[in-house]
Amino acid sequence: MALTPARTMPGVLELLPLDQIAFQRMLDVIRRNYERFGFLPIETPVIEYSDVLLTKTGGETERQVYFVQSTGALNAEKDADGVPELALRFDLTVPLARYVAEHERDLSFPFRRYQMQRVYRGERAQRGRFREFYQCDIDVIGKDSLSVRYDAEVPAVIYSVFRELNVGAFTIQMNNRKLMRGYFEKLGIADAEQQMLVLREVDKLDKRGADYVRDTLTGEAFGLSSGVANQILAFVQVRSTSLQDAFDKLAALGEGPEAMEQGRAELKEVLGLIHAFGVPETHYALNLSIARGLDYYTGTVYETTLNDHPQIGSVCSGGRYENLASQYTKSKLPGVGISIGLTRLYWQLRDAGLVNTAQSTVDVLVTQMDEAQLPAYLALANELRSAGIATEVVLEAGKLGKQFKYADRAGIRFVLVLGEDELAKGVVTVKDLRREDQFEVARGELIKTLRVELEQAAVMG
Amino acid sequence: MALTPARTMPGVLELLPLDQIAFQRMLDVIRRNYERFGFLPIETPVIEYSDVLLTKTGGETERQVYFVQSTGALNAEKDADGVPELALRFDLTVPLARYVAEHERDLSFPFRRYQMQRVYRGERAQRGRFREFYQCDIDVIGKDSLSVRYDAEVPAVIYSVFRELNVGAFTIQMNNRKLMRGYFEKLGIADAEQQMLVLREVDKLDKRGADYVRDTLTGEAFGLSSGVANQILAFVQVRSTSLQDAFDKLAALGEGPEAMEQGRAELKEVLGLIHAFGVPETHYALNLSIARGLDYYTGTVYETTLNDHPQIGSVCSGGRYENLASQYTKSKLPGVGISIGLTRLYWQLRDAGLVNTAQSTVDVLVTQMDEAQLPAYLALANELRSAGIATEVVLEAGKLGKQFKYADRAGIRFVLVLGEDELAKGVVTVKDLRREDQFEVARGELIKTLRVELEQAAVMG
Repeated sequence: MALTPARTMPGVLELLPLDQIAFQRMLDVIRRNYERFGFLPIETPVIEYSDVLLTKTGGETERQVYFVQSTGALNAEKDADGVPELALRFDLTVPLARYVAEHERDLSFPFRRYQMQRVYRGERAQRGRFREFYQCDIDVIGKDSLSVRYDAEVPAVIYSVFRELNVGAFTIQMNNRKLMRGYFEKLGIADAEQQMLVLREVDKLDKRGADYVRDTLTGEAFGLSSGVANQILAFVQVRSTSLQDAFDKLAALGEGPEAMEQGRAELKEVLGLIHAFGVPETHYALNLSIARGLDYYTGTVYETTLNDHPQIGSVCSGGRYENLASQYTKSKLPGVGISIGLTRLYWQLRDAGLVNTAQSTVDVLVTQMDEAQLPAYLALANELRSAGIATEVVLEAGKLGKQFKYADRAGIRFVLVLGEDELAKGVVTVKDLRREDQFEVARGELIKTLRVELEQAAVMG
Repeated sequence: MALTPARTMPGVLELLPLDQIAFQRMLDVIRRNYERFGFLPIETPVIEYSDVLLTKTGGETERQVYFVQSTGALNAEKDADGVPELALRFDLTVPLARYVAEHERDLSFPFRRYQMQRVYRGERAQRGRFREFYQCDIDVIGKDSLSVRYDAEVPAVIYSVFRELNVGAFTIQMNNRKLMRGYFEKLGIADAEQQMLVLREVDKLDKRGADYVRDTLTGEAFGLSSGVANQILAFVQVRSTSLQDAFDKLAALGEGPEAMEQGRAELKEVLGLIHAFGVPETHYALNLSIARGLDYYTGTVYETTLNDHPQIGSVCSGGRYENLASQYTKSKLPGVGISIGLTRLYWQLRDAGLVNTAQSTVDVLVTQMDEAQLPAYLALANELRSAGIATEVVLEAGKLGKQFKYADRAGIRFVLVLGEDELAKGVVTVKDLRREDQFEVARGELIKTLRVELEQAAVMG
């Protein structure tokens, strides 16, 4: 039989075990922190009905959807438009909306959920673009209303997650869509459609620069005066350097129409509470350029950037929305949430040398010096495992040097040797492959000693 | 806009948060035990190339495959047979084979991997049949050869997992395909094809009964003498009641051809080591009826059953195979592995009342008695979270009774009250909703007290 080449499609990130362990540790950190803030897990099926997935979205998103058909249904299951009945989710927000609408009566509100699953987009193959990637989301969903205080809790979760992810200094950047819209109104840009278009231009500021945006705004399409264009540019370049500075800069914007005052009041409430939520001033800032897409978010918006790696862009984004699930239910379900695109983040952090992939989940390798002593090796492994120490035993005889090499290559730091000498003396030889050191431990002290070593290794790396 | 009904397709198990927590705990137990035995995590993409997925399998499996097409490719991406280019994996074994073949040079052998992901099968909608379900697999893959000792390690992992899953008494049932085949040979059924057919009939013993199988074997299709049919039936009804009994029953089979002696020697080696691996005699048995499908497994085979719930069938199955990835590589890669179909198992255990879903991941709810004290509530929550206690704070004012009710409904056991009295006295009132009890704790003692309570709750349920 001819061999089939073993390969995966472009745009997926398949990892070797040590990389997978590093990835899994990030997932664990995120989950632990989400849970620490009282978010509850849900998982939804990767396959949804196409009409459920595609109610709200159109154009770009629709072209990126993966449709699914069972063999028998390859041609049969298309509806009148020729769209197959089933598709893969392209984010976790639409499935959340469907979930909340479907299970509304069984949920307690405010509903605080986290969800960490893969999503699928039929992107063109391109470096850094993934067709399959993890999203790690939290959302708080209210019934009818949801206090803006929840908008202040979100930065606390972000702070807690990224501090523990240990990726260096980061800043949670905040803005408010109402403030933005109201400010444009104040400048005479009152039409909602026109505001949207201005926001879309402003969103290009980082990529295209101030001159480009100013030219566009004063050009034919918008026809704004250069005074107004400059005020918009000054507005979106506002950044705060401390909590007091944030309050000052909000005050310096001057009075404005209702939407602006509402947005300012919300931002002030959020900023006022954020300290009580335990986020230090060094880790958040007002950034009035942040718009986060165009129609979904309605109040507070967040982006998070790594201070030393601005090129990575936002590593965690989100915001406040008016109504989660209007396409499925008449209930009003306002919410606030964030998403971490972990696959891309991991890939970028690894690129930047910020991911440590050298350490295995296997704590200890029990070597095989003497085949006849296998039962003793197994008994030792049982003891270690019962103590929660992840242990692999070499079951096939081989040269000791080869066994060390295997451990080293597999990222297993501690190797145990139990030979004739050790058995006679009632000790075990512990070899630390990282420190290139070895020492004898009394059998009765082994678990205690290894625990100390492993704790140190976890802290010191 | 007309509302779209919020719904999922049949054959998926979507859980409410408390059920999801119970499910997640089972995933965590399995993962922890797999890691404790030194298995390394991998994850593979859910989408594979169709030609990669469908090399080996045919017929039934092929009809159950879900094919995947991006919007633009709905008609374009079919190959000459009209098969779309991409499909969803239907198990974790084919992706493992592809993974090992693709990354062979980067892996250390024996390669010990675990993988816990969802797989997809276009099953007909039917109670207890899932179209999306978790498989939790381990495999040890050798290069060129793999000692039968690894076959003895597998029951140790099964034992460790199911003991901690706390599902009552269970038995790991073992057989060996070579012993089976050799025994049939001894009875004059030497043709491999014929053996396969007999094995297929024997596989029906549990479902159809001995009489049905005997009638089939002595009937036209097989034409075996009733003496031979009875010997086959006697063979497959062999069960051991202790380790010694297992050895005795293996000896009592009498001498046989090479395959039989080889199978017996393997079983004896596995049985001889299993004790050293720490599996008590009460938890495994020889069961010569187990065949596990027809062509994949070649040596040891396993099934695990719950003693008090035989109707559930095997909760963990697997075995030894000759060559993992012959369709992708010329390397010989023998292995041994098992799979837990967790979605189905969870569903069955819940049905049998064996899953406890009452407890939330949220340890503590900090109530809001006095809106003005919100910063104090948040400071308290920060302290608790820093101590690893998962804490939710009520951010919107409401009647205290309603807050208790929310906690109760959400499965949060401990509720903290910090009112004027408590603040004046420097204490916190802890309300245990499960025990319907409450007590005051000095603020400085709170974390210690809660930790003790939570540990007790985790142990006592």
